[in-house]
Amino acid sequence: MKIGLIGFGKAGKAVANVILQHTDFSLEWVLRKSGILEHTSAKEVLGISVADPGLIYSEQNTDLEALLNKKPVDIIIDFSTAEGIYSYGKIASRRNIKIISAISHYEENEKRFLKELSLDTVVFWSPNITLGVNYLLFAASLLKNIAPGVDIEVIEEHFKAKAGISGTAVKIAETLDIETSSINSVRAGGIVGKHEVIFGFPYQTVRLVHESISREAFGSGALFVAENLNKKGNGLYNFEDILRPYFFNQS
Amino acid sequence: MKIGLIGFGKAGKAVANVILQHTDFSLEWVLRKSGILEHTSAKEVLGISVADPGLIYSEQNTDLEALLNKKPVDIIIDFSTAEGIYSYGKIASRRNIKIISAISHYEENEKRFLKELSLDTVVFWSPNITLGVNYLLFAASLLKNIAPGVDIEVIEEHFKAKAGISGTAVKIAETLDIETSSINSVRAGGIVGKHEVIFGFPYQTVRLVHESISREAFGSGALFVAENLNKKGNGLYNFEDILRPYFFNQS
Amino acid sequence: MKIGLIGFGKAGKAVANVILQHTDFSLEWVLRKSGILEHTSAKEVLGISVADPGLIYSEQNTDLEALLNKKPVDIIIDFSTAEGIYSYGKIASRRNIKIISAISHYEENEKRFLKELSLDTVVFWSPNITLGVNYLLFAASLLKNIAPGVDIEVIEEHFKAKAGISGTAVKIAETLDIETSSINSVRAGGIVGKHEVIFGFPYQTVRLVHESISREAFGSGALFVAENLNKKGNGLYNFEDILRPYFFNQS
Amino acid sequence: MKIGLIGFGKAGKAVANVILQHTDFSLEWVLRKSGILEHTSAKEVLGISVADPGLIYSEQNTDLEALLNKKPVDIIIDFSTAEGIYSYGKIASRRNIKIISAISHYEENEKRFLKELSLDTVVFWSPNITLGVNYLLFAASLLKNIAPGVDIEVIEEHFKAKAGISGTAVKIAETLDIETSSINSVRAGGIVGKHEVIFGFPYQTVRLVHESISREAFGSGALFVAENLNKKGNGLYNFEDILRPYFFNQS
Repeated sequence: MKIGLIGFGKAGKAVANVILQHTDFSLEWVLRKSGILEHTSAKEVLGISVADPGLIYSEQNTDLEALLNKKPVDIIIDFSTAEGIYSYGKIASRRNIKIISAISHYEENEKRFLKELSLDTVVFWSPNITLGVNYLLFAASLLKNIAPGVDIEVIEEHFKAKAGISGTAVKIAETLDIETSSINSVRAGGIVGKHEVIFGFPYQTVRLVHESISREAFGSGALFVAENLNKKGNGLYNFEDILRPYFFNQS
Repeated sequence: MKIGLIGFGKAGKAVANVILQHTDFSLEWVLRKSGILEHTSAKEVLGISVADPGLIYSEQNTDLEALLNKKPVDIIIDFSTAEGIYSYGKIASRRNIKIISAISHYEENEKRFLKELSLDTVVFWSPNITLGVNYLLFAASLLKNIAPGVDIEVIEEHFKAKAGISGTAVKIAETLDIETSSINSVRAGGIVGKHEVIFGFPYQTVRLVHESISREAFGSGALFVAENLNKKGNGLYNFEDILRPYFFNQS
Repeated sequence: MKIGLIGFGKAGKAVANVILQHTDFSLEWVLRKSGILEHTSAKEVLGISVADPGLIYSEQNTDLEALLNKKPVDIIIDFSTAEGIYSYGKIASRRNIKIISAISHYEENEKRFLKELSLDTVVFWSPNITLGVNYLLFAASLLKNIAPGVDIEVIEEHFKAKAGISGTAVKIAETLDIETSSINSVRAGGIVGKHEVIFGFPYQTVRLVHESISREAFGSGALFVAENLNKKGNGLYNFEDILRPYFFNQS
Repeated sequence: MKIGLIGFGKAGKAVANVILQHTDFSLEWVLRKSGILEHTSAKEVLGISVADPGLIYSEQNTDLEALLNKKPVDIIIDFSTAEGIYSYGKIASRRNIKIISAISHYEENEKRFLKELSLDTVVFWSPNITLGVNYLLFAASLLKNIAPGVDIEVIEEHFKAKAGISGTAVKIAETLDIETSSINSVRAGGIVGKHEVIFGFPYQTVRLVHESISREAFGSGALFVAENLNKKGNGLYNFEDILRPYFFNQS
């Protein structure tokens, strides 16, 4: 599958790193706002030796239609900003290029736009695109469904400088319908990221724990989504739509 | 719901303890092999103050048909031994009394007998009847299905004297199709019981952890099953059959 | 060593249970406020079969001097209330009986009284007398000393009904000189008791974790103290005084 | 303090990264075997913007005496190989430059050489130079000393490809005098490195856990050692020698 990547910040770089090392996918190009590193290759920037170069283009000097004519792609993966979607959405949907967006937060306007685009192509959006966190949400929600009265608490641990409750913890609380006061935020040293959901029963305890090792997890998640969108018809999908069929196929 | 309990060992006592304290269920009688404590009440033995007495009968001096005529039940819960089923199975199925068996291990003969009984009544069997462990098996199996290539290891911790790999850990390994060599058994002090399934991805780790607090978890599990068998037709069920519908109803 | 136990509540019973099963110690008597179970033996109440009976006496009908004449002891272990000390303190110090008090909280008056008693006998007081928690305090304090700038957070987990921050967590915070806001209190189901101190360094994390299994840990702690007070001169000791020599003897 | 670094492999690079960012220390030079990157600066290679360049020299083309004349240092930190010590040991001891070696394994010859060098300068050697692991060893050994009969098990978790039991786990087992069979090795995904020592008591459990985040921990450890060697007289030291005084100063 041929992929075009929008965005080349910390997350974008990690995603490029994963795509470049995966033989089932080729990174045709990277499109970023800034002009830095223009026309160098992502593989050089990342210091890895692979076949695909993953040439970097700047939005400032690039016509997307021309780029797509020269280097067509099956999927556009978006790790830029909320506004990014306006720069490629229409063009992608018209060409029936699948869209995978990992933008953390969209306003109503963008959500409506995604919906509109999804009439003509496959559109996927997940604010956290790691497989682990989405599985955790899914599995936790199942247990809450089984045992509605169980006591639930969340512990999230991150590096000292991280301000506020983590977005993932807030999402867990929303999904499980628990108060924000049940989220315990630990900030210490360089902890990369850990989320633990504690289900306290009278005579037993169940814990679901997700630990982040590196941002490359976003890349694995995006490629997992790409594979699973393969046979989907046009429409707007989220991560739960991707995970649900695995359950039905469970032996 | 009216319950008759077969078996009054450590697990049986803990189960009686939970049933007696649950207002939706009444413990009509306890039937045990030994003659010890015959005709005393379970609530006295357990030192709790509740309405139901839960009178204890010995198999040696008790005619089950007569007991059921005097004190009819909806469900028989079996925490005795593998042979226990022969003492009450036919009688229960003829009277359409539901059977919930938590026997750890049955030979082929008993399994065939359960199948036979299930033509005429609802029969449930689970070697580990706690909600937590069964949820863990279910959720772990789902993640393995989503990510078939993921590295899986199991850590099980129990008190020093516990010999061999725990039955639950073996069951986890079977369910996830991993080698027994991937089970790490820790034996130290008085640890009640902990099972941890580690899913190692390249850039993230997911852990599912179950910690036992007390044997009363068997009682909660049995009553959870009892509630969920309520509208089932005759047939043989296991814990996964009970959990599966929760998924389909998931919002 | 001959022991007299003051107090026979939940903790007192667990302590009696441990003393009775330890062959180096004999439980000469139990003295409690209430008249319940008077003149029965602790071993019967606890349902264990050991040599020592551990006869129970009520303060209401017992003259301590007479009791000590009939059944002398080397040590009095106090698991009663803050006022308990006044009922036996003077008598114990005059007879040079060692005092081990595990009372959670003393006012200034009682502390002064302990000090006074310690002129004539060995007096030990620790608000939490488990070996594990005291080791945790000791080891955590050492790491803080080594790395004064490290980020420290505490997670304490207990059963749902436990109100307020745990006394042990407060003690940890005081010892490490961290804010109460750095204590994260998790309340869920039937968790017996877990304390975790997290030391967050930029490139590594150290965690010290204590998990309670049962109140019998108070008994083990009290006997550990009793053994270690053996060769001490008169004076007032705390748990750190007991642990410190182990460091100096470390190979 | 002026530092010269020997070795610029993965660990050496991480150590340079930490030294460069620490204002109390300046990285005068890096000396490596290979000629790659010669005469570029470590800060460029690492992509960080700091004052010190940390110029890289190759052993092939560099005379250490001349380098030290031009760029004198207080300390040489060695992250090269076991043979490295022969290339700089005599020169350093003659000039009374402190030596901090983090070589994983030395043969008897090298150990004898270190001893010899330590007559004329301060020599420090630790096979694992992170503060966390050394604290863990120290604290675990203390608890074992307090409770010699306690059950001890070790769990060590690392990335899938790591072969054999981790050197740190072996060191823990040696220090605590437990069998290698009590080490449980988990290999899964990309786990960076976790060591957990479990102390199982009958009624409570104590866990000491160390989690690695990145190799930069070696750098922090080396600088911690550098600071603590400051007032030491000539001699051979290990990490325990560094930690021990913190205990005696403990309030």
